[in-house]
Amino acid sequence: MSRKILVLPGDGIGPEITAEAVKILNACRDTGLGITLEDGLVGGAGYEAFGEPLPAETLDKAKAADAILLGAVGGPQWDKLEDISKRPEKGLLGLRKNLNLFGNLRPALLYPQLAEASSLKPDVVSGLDIMIVRELTGGIYFGQPRGIEERDGQRVGFNTYVYSESEIERIGRVAFEMAKKRSGRLCSVDKANVLEVTMLWREVMERLSADYPDVELSHMYVDNAAMQLVRAPKQFDVIVTGNMFGDILSDAAAMLTGSIGMLPSASLNESGQGMYEPCHGSAPDIAGKGLANPLATILSVAMMLRYTLNESALAERIERAVGSVLDEGLRTADIAYEGTRKVTTTEMGDAVLEAF
Amino acid sequence: MSRKILVLPGDGIGPEITAEAVKILNACRDTGLGITLEDGLVGGAGYEAFGEPLPAETLDKAKAADAILLGAVGGPQWDKLEDISKRPEKGLLGLRKNLNLFGNLRPALLYPQLAEASSLKPDVVSGLDIMIVRELTGGIYFGQPRGIEERDGQRVGFNTYVYSESEIERIGRVAFEMAKKRSGRLCSVDKANVLEVTMLWREVMERLSADYPDVELSHMYVDNAAMQLVRAPKQFDVIVTGNMFGDILSDAAAMLTGSIGMLPSASLNESGQGMYEPCHGSAPDIAGKGLANPLATILSVAMMLRYTLNESALAERIERAVGSVLDEGLRTADIAYEGTRKVTTTEMGDAVLEAF
Ligand SMILES: CC(C)[C@H](C(=O)O)[C@@H](O)C(=O)O
Ligand SMILES: CC(C)[C@H](C(=O)O)[C@@H](O)C(=O)O
Repeated sequence: MSRKILVLPGDGIGPEITAEAVKILNACRDTGLGITLEDGLVGGAGYEAFGEPLPAETLDKAKAADAILLGAVGGPQWDKLEDISKRPEKGLLGLRKNLNLFGNLRPALLYPQLAEASSLKPDVVSGLDIMIVRELTGGIYFGQPRGIEERDGQRVGFNTYVYSESEIERIGRVAFEMAKKRSGRLCSVDKANVLEVTMLWREVMERLSADYPDVELSHMYVDNAAMQLVRAPKQFDVIVTGNMFGDILSDAAAMLTGSIGMLPSASLNESGQGMYEPCHGSAPDIAGKGLANPLATILSVAMMLRYTLNESALAERIERAVGSVLDEGLRTADIAYEGTRKVTTTEMGDAVLEAF
Repeated sequence: MSRKILVLPGDGIGPEITAEAVKILNACRDTGLGITLEDGLVGGAGYEAFGEPLPAETLDKAKAADAILLGAVGGPQWDKLEDISKRPEKGLLGLRKNLNLFGNLRPALLYPQLAEASSLKPDVVSGLDIMIVRELTGGIYFGQPRGIEERDGQRVGFNTYVYSESEIERIGRVAFEMAKKRSGRLCSVDKANVLEVTMLWREVMERLSADYPDVELSHMYVDNAAMQLVRAPKQFDVIVTGNMFGDILSDAAAMLTGSIGMLPSASLNESGQGMYEPCHGSAPDIAGKGLANPLATILSVAMMLRYTLNESALAERIERAVGSVLDEGLRTADIAYEGTRKVTTTEMGDAVLEAF
């Protein structure tokens, strides 16, 4: 059986970093993994070629794929597009929505070799290992009605933050299962003291917890969660939250590690199909210079092997290879410091390949 | 002319900390400041006495006051109230809305004497001095429609994130004026790549910036702002954002200082009437034990003198008094460490009074 992988390099540093990750995918194939790779255009690259951030051809390929490896989308040249449906981000959001990739897994893991990179004190973050489970196809990102319109002689902008019980339950189960496999602790983040939609969220999480007696559920308001992530992040193991709060908290959590260039992510649907991408963005300012860190994308391949292809042994091999190049002192510019060896994007990819 | 100050102790540690701040207000009166003080009930305290978190009597007094000093509201005993309109938070939200206190100023200031308390590395936060300007009477906190209802056989929760041009302009002007008085740099935080309401926000901020040629306006997405606050907070001077994002970011920013027990806040309306309160909450776990830090509430009095009573000389006297008790090494439990002198809530209040 051969599984189909769609590679969507996207914009900015996307092509450089996915190229390194593809080397690892090819190496996996050489070990006997049954995969076939295909390419596609998305984001600004899709817009330039087809006038659409998510060309129909790309969406068709994505639907047919078992897994997608995405680089990153966006760049300043498209930020001023009047028609916002043409912006690169819409390509990403369209993929998430059309493939129903509601379950977003965002680990925030501190690599011991990179402990110095954090802006936090070592004792606050050493050993940090949080998994943020973010709902990705609902909430205020997709809620209707939305828009900008004239009311009483002035313009008004509006969006709708909405979740149904079944949407909450679906992501809740992903998070409870994750907590079960990890420490057994799950913290659900909401703003139930103000927002009705998150009161329902809290209620459904409570109800679900009866099905997971071995998971200890707690609740936290989002403002407090942002504070606690800064104050004492190691109190958390698995966090589950909605699309918007997840966007904010997962970026804050990722930055606690000081090396966002290291963090992968997975976005899954109910049949296990998944899109895998680094947590960082397209970094247009350093694109094409060989400065980008390919490790988050390479580690996204590891997540792909674990969550879609059910090849955890191979996933661990990749993760070990990354660990060993870090042990050797190899660093791209974003994580380099005195006493380490600065390497380019390609050199880093090749080093991982060799250690694999 | 005598100005009216309404003191609303609220719940938890509220009564203890406002009692210390009232000592300072009385001392100001003794120096010739024309003020009269009144008391009122709000939050859980209002609910217990009148069955309402914002009793009519309290609202009347609040409307008649020039300034309000609020302790904090909330506690576990009211979290399970079925009728959410009775929860303590609704008292706070009701005051904000009824008095039209749209301009929330939340400084995040690192006291050099407390630099050790931060979870961040000293060089990342030393000298930190950010002013967050949060819109406080609009956005998703108050947007309609909202609720939980049955749709297609299941319950759905929904809230509306809405801003009009005039609401955005009003808070924008507060922020531009603030930036003008400070460093001349203003960062507006939104999620304009996804949410229409914040596209309008960005557009209005851009338009306003023509009126403030000496202020340099920049824009940042909220997820990136959360990240940048962790990575390099000193890049910010004044931040302006909506109600929800402001709630999250101001708490994260406050926590960067490591001493949220030190941070005051002001909520102002167009006529300069204001409510002043500490950034921290009601901390029911330590209520009545003499452990609470009264300095945020005392510093809220300083903000009141500066922003509503136009007595900046007195405000500075209070701030200097706080500085000198810190210099002397006095610390409440939350900010105490080896080599400092641990004091109770009352001892701290008395020490500030003496240094005043
Ligand atoms: C690019 C943007 C639309 C996206 C989001 O907000 O979801 C990004 O920030 C992310 O977190 O993947
Ligand atoms: C208590 C709560 C309703 C309030 C808010 O969310 O505004 C608080 O968190 C704050 O920031 O003042």
